[in-house]
Amino acid sequence: MQMMKFHKLFITIHCCLILLTFQNSHAQQQEGEIISPEVQENGSVIFRLQAPEVDTVKIFGTWLEDYTERIVMKKNASGLFEAEVGPLEPDMYVYRFFVDGVPMLDPNNNIVVRDGSNIESRLVIPGEQSELYDVNDVPHGELHAVWYPSPTIDMDRRMTVYTPPGYDETSSQQYPVLYLLHGAGGDEEAWISRGRANYILDNLIAEGKAEPMIVVITNGIPSVPAAPNDQPMFKEDPDTEGPSPMISGKFEESLVKDIIPFVEENYNVIADPDHRAISGLSMGGYHTQKITNANPETFEYIGVMSFGLYDRFGKYDRDEHISKLQNLDEGNPTVYWVACGRTDFLFDDVTRLLALYDEIGFDYTYRESEGGHTWNNWRLYLSEFLPMLFK
Amino acid sequence: MQMMKFHKLFITIHCCLILLTFQNSHAQQQEGEIISPEVQENGSVIFRLQAPEVDTVKIFGTWLEDYTERIVMKKNASGLFEAEVGPLEPDMYVYRFFVDGVPMLDPNNNIVVRDGSNIESRLVIPGEQSELYDVNDVPHGELHAVWYPSPTIDMDRRMTVYTPPGYDETSSQQYPVLYLLHGAGGDEEAWISRGRANYILDNLIAEGKAEPMIVVITNGIPSVPAAPNDQPMFKEDPDTEGPSPMISGKFEESLVKDIIPFVEENYNVIADPDHRAISGLSMGGYHTQKITNANPETFEYIGVMSFGLYDRFGKYDRDEHISKLQNLDEGNPTVYWVACGRTDFLFDDVTRLLALYDEIGFDYTYRESEGGHTWNNWRLYLSEFLPMLFK
Repeated sequence: MQMMKFHKLFITIHCCLILLTFQNSHAQQQEGEIISPEVQENGSVIFRLQAPEVDTVKIFGTWLEDYTERIVMKKNASGLFEAEVGPLEPDMYVYRFFVDGVPMLDPNNNIVVRDGSNIESRLVIPGEQSELYDVNDVPHGELHAVWYPSPTIDMDRRMTVYTPPGYDETSSQQYPVLYLLHGAGGDEEAWISRGRANYILDNLIAEGKAEPMIVVITNGIPSVPAAPNDQPMFKEDPDTEGPSPMISGKFEESLVKDIIPFVEENYNVIADPDHRAISGLSMGGYHTQKITNANPETFEYIGVMSFGLYDRFGKYDRDEHISKLQNLDEGNPTVYWVACGRTDFLFDDVTRLLALYDEIGFDYTYRESEGGHTWNNWRLYLSEFLPMLFK
Repeated sequence: MQMMKFHKLFITIHCCLILLTFQNSHAQQQEGEIISPEVQENGSVIFRLQAPEVDTVKIFGTWLEDYTERIVMKKNASGLFEAEVGPLEPDMYVYRFFVDGVPMLDPNNNIVVRDGSNIESRLVIPGEQSELYDVNDVPHGELHAVWYPSPTIDMDRRMTVYTPPGYDETSSQQYPVLYLLHGAGGDEEAWISRGRANYILDNLIAEGKAEPMIVVITNGIPSVPAAPNDQPMFKEDPDTEGPSPMISGKFEESLVKDIIPFVEENYNVIADPDHRAISGLSMGGYHTQKITNANPETFEYIGVMSFGLYDRFGKYDRDEHISKLQNLDEGNPTVYWVACGRTDFLFDDVTRLLALYDEIGFDYTYRESEGGHTWNNWRLYLSEFLPMLFK
């Protein structure tokens, strides 16, 4: 759609040469002004793709519970494929087309989001929930892409830091910090691109529902320094033989030894457990458990999203787990929050984690939502967790 | 390729459920471990796409001078399309596939770059030039996504600020500033995503070839506040009737009235013309001319990339242009640099601009390169312009 705006702009200045050159690779999608996705007032959506030479176009979108499901688009005589979906609940979704079996973005949608290597077209249905993820007319915090040294992992690594509206390094005002961890497919940009964490923060802070805070979004894969675009271009693939780097413990160790000291040295931070929170989704929920179990009295606010008992992961020592939880419980963290969706494929693991907590009398609050292992839930959980912090 | 790494990692932890769910939408591209693009030692590249149901797959890539050219991929009996291209010069390129006529990213390449609405797959051929664009083992600056008030345009707008390695808001060290402007299709992220400006800076600063400096990358389209992902989700399309906002003069005015004062108030800046540079590509070269012509003695370093005489753009007053250039020349800017490629479609306009400069005795340096109106040239120009600044 945005290309059309440029098209019109350029026509107004009678500069067709520039038009041709700037837009060459998108020429196809401009013909006939195809609009996709078109969101209708009732929350239904029409998807379109002009593809006269193609036999089948199907859609997968994250409003579908079954990820193997495909919506078949209908082709008309002029080669335009269309499908109407919904009405859908107000929220943010992602989708992709399958063109004769090949997965692709919607070429008429210029909003593309990324969670690690999953690159998708974005769809938003207006409503209360999606308003919380929108760029509203409120003060905005800043995002910083920061390289920091990690002696523990023996590389310089990259993280994203959100500073709240009004943050000023030269002022004496200090802020609490939330460490926010991504899942196995993600990186230090996932909570921004798919998670909209910065706009959720902006909006909740503006409404007075969240305290102004710094949010540190790390990269939890210790075998790489950064998101794909920001990795060295010609590096060797990391050695993936042997134990997975995800469960090597290296990231968890580096968060405590490298990241927290770096943040507390370089930002205006209240450097005590009362002003330190941690939360993560999926693999980040695993990391959150490992980090807080190993470091009692370090975080007063702990949020585990969509991850349960980790006894399926490599070596598991139940006695050691219980002993660590008892140490953690002695420090009596202000908030220990566990959230999971009813249809999450890790639901049983979460149930077993809570059973262990109940068995040993470990305090927690449990939030069970509809839905599964999805960004729709993780954005929702973040918006519910933030108001609990630093009060 | 990165998906394969996660695949292996997860197999090592025997967690197939997670594997399935995280990777559902990429399942197709994992079968058979398809590698695309595969760069060979001599700089040739093999592209691959598994698409048994598809009749034709073609490629467009920015190594092709003619943007209407397509490379046809050959299909083998198992439905794998392949094409070998090159050898190509060491540099960074972008490409896309056309699957039975439909433009799409390469689903096996997880590096995607964006210039406005142009979303493309990245290809890099190793060598001296691309090394300058790489994430090398040198100190890295920081990128900041910053919202600032623009009373001139009457909205809060977003820009990207690069601060050099070692920059510290609380220190007394002050830095010069380069204002770096994008082309008509771009936004405040284009010089990072397609331009690799932050890594070019990191590398040239590390080699001692560029002075440590702050770089301010603005959004030159005054009808929108930000890049597509960071615009309000449900806004009305901007009114594109009447004069184009690109040549309304509003952005140029806001740079001087809103952006420079904001930067000089909020960053450790040496706030004088000797420590102020401006450069832009294409439409940004137009903006650079308009801003510097209207504000003599404001920038000592001026770089116009791939844009010439603007007499084809709306109302043009030759006498006024000459009078402004004479004012600018009286201030005797240290560097006035014009760069253009020999096959740039604006080459004649640049020739006419330089003829006017010669006619009135306006001092400039001209850099003519091979190639056309391309990011390959703009990255090259930036790497040549930066060493001229603030010496």
